[in-house]
Order: sequence, then C-alpha cells, then structure tokens
Amino acid sequence: MSPMQQNPSNRDAERERLCAALERKILADIPLARTMLLRARAYDGVSLTFSAALAPNINDKGCAFGGSLVSLMTLTGWGLIKLALDARGVDCDIYVKDSQIRYIAPVWRDFDAIAGLGEGQSFAAMFDTIDARGKAGIDVRCHVPLADDSQAATLAARFVAIARR
Amino acid sequence: MSPMQQNPSNRDAERERLCAALERKILADIPLARTMLLRARAYDGVSLTFSAALAPNINDKGCAFGGSLVSLMTLTGWGLIKLALDARGVDCDIYVKDSQIRYIAPVWRDFDAIAGLGEGQSFAAMFDTIDARGKAGIDVRCHVPLADDSQAATLAARFVAIARR
Repeated sequence: MSPMQQNPSNRDAERERLCAALERKILADIPLARTMLLRARAYDGVSLTFSAALAPNINDKGCAFGGSLVSLMTLTGWGLIKLALDARGVDCDIYVKDSQIRYIAPVWRDFDAIAGLGEGQSFAAMFDTIDARGKAGIDVRCHVPLADDSQAATLAARFVAIARR
Repeated sequence: MSPMQQNPSNRDAERERLCAALERKILADIPLARTMLLRARAYDGVSLTFSAALAPNINDKGCAFGGSLVSLMTLTGWGLIKLALDARGVDCDIYVKDSQIRYIAPVWRDFDAIAGLGEGQSFAAMFDTIDARGKAGIDVRCHVPLADDSQAATLAARFVAIARR
C-alpha cells in the first residue's frame, strides 16, 4: 500500500486507541459513569458516540432519568474535546461552563449520546487559542437519538480547555 | 395551645413527613440518586434542599462532576413540584422539559442544591391549570451554594406536571 492509502487506517487505529483509553479513564475517574455503564461506541475525529444502559439510569416512571441523559451528553461533549486534545498531544483540564438542555421525548431503552462541534466552531481555532493564551472556549452540540432517528434530548454546551503547566 | 398556635407545627410535621417519604421514593426509584447518596435536608413549603456526598460524585479533577450537579439540581426542582402536589393530594407525573445550567465554580466538598419557584410562578396557578386542563408547566430555579454563600452552579428549568387518570 502507498502511504496515502495507509495513513487513514493508521489514523483510524490511533483514534480507536485514544477512544478506548478515554473510556477506561472516565470509568476509572468518575463513579457516576461506572453506575451508568457508560461505553465509548464510535469516534471518527468529528463526532463521538457514548452509550449507557437503561436499567441503572431509570427514573420513577421507568424511562431514562433526565440527570442521566444530561450526564451522558455532557461526558460525550467533554470526551469530544478531550480526544481532539489527546490526538494533538496537548494536556488540558476541560470544564463545562454552561449548557442548554431540551428534553423532547422519553427514552425507554439503552441510549446513545452523539456529540459534535457547534456551528462555526473548529478544533484548529481552539488549538491556536490555547497556544496563544493557554486556554480556549469551544461550543459543542450533543443529542440522544431515538430508534427512528428523531431526538429524545439535545444539549448545547460551552466547554473551556485550560493548558496544564 | 390554641388552634392558631398548633396549626403551623402540624403543617411543619406534615411537610417533614412528605419530605422524608419523597427521599425514600427517590432512593427506591432512581439508581443514580442512590449512587449519589442523595438526602432530603430541608423543606418549608417554598424551598427544598437536597444534598449529595462528594466522594461518589467526583470527576477526573476530584471535584464534583457537572452531571452530578445537574442531576441533584434537577431532582431538587422535581421534588419541589412533587411535594406541592403531594401536599394537595394531586397525583401527577412530573417531567423536566428544558433547562439552562451555569457552572460557576468547582465544588470540593459535599454539596446542597436549593430549589424554589421561578419569578412570577405560583403553585396556586399550577393547581388551577391542572384542575382546568389536566396538566401545567412551571418554572423552577435551583442553585448549589458554596461555603461563602456564593453560587457554584445554577439551573433554571421548566417542568410539566400531568395528572394521572
């Protein structure tokens, strides 16, 4: 294979490795993620999918608890930023600053959260700002899809990444 | 004691009973609340305080995970509506519809969430609307105080209560 053919598969393997390491880190560091049975499902450099089981995340009605939906969406957004920084080898603390959540429909099964950047946002701009100022803010959007691809819940959140000294 | 002196203490005892029953219900129904070590702390008919322990709610930095802060604030807001309906003997399912969250400062110890109604909201209006239409929306505000009484996080949320048939 030529280098042009080989590079994408190397890149995919590296993404898979970083994503698996992130899942291990989240499960090791965050007790709530262990209770939720969080799993990292897919990462292509642009969007990240985490999943959670329904059973440990139910509410009084037997569907997914709003706090679990927000927690999974927030962690998926956080993970999207973390993986971009990991791939570039930049060591940052990442905080969620604010978020807007809409709960659209109840969730009666195991669920995913899919995160991507907000409109007009780019990792390139985030890296440049961190290089220049030691920190940067970035907007993320996340949603929980239903079986018919409509949305059960959405989150728009701003995160801040601060370089570790 | 005259009835005028006795009524307030009867009312306080009834609130205490309803609040303790709510804590038991939440811990029985919502696994995440058990993991969080949620406790009902105070209820005066106007505001409700829930607490959670830090240890099961930490993030990768060792302070409170954003998802835990939102979960506790959302449950406290939900509980405020639930207790008002319980005190009136109205059986409803209560859902959170949307919320805006600000994360202002990290939380490094066990934490409370304090919920009250949003500006211009009243339980009387909520009861009237449920009587007339079988459901009603109501705005709640909640915050996590720090030791110096500043705010670590705030939540503004809209809930919907739907009468059970």
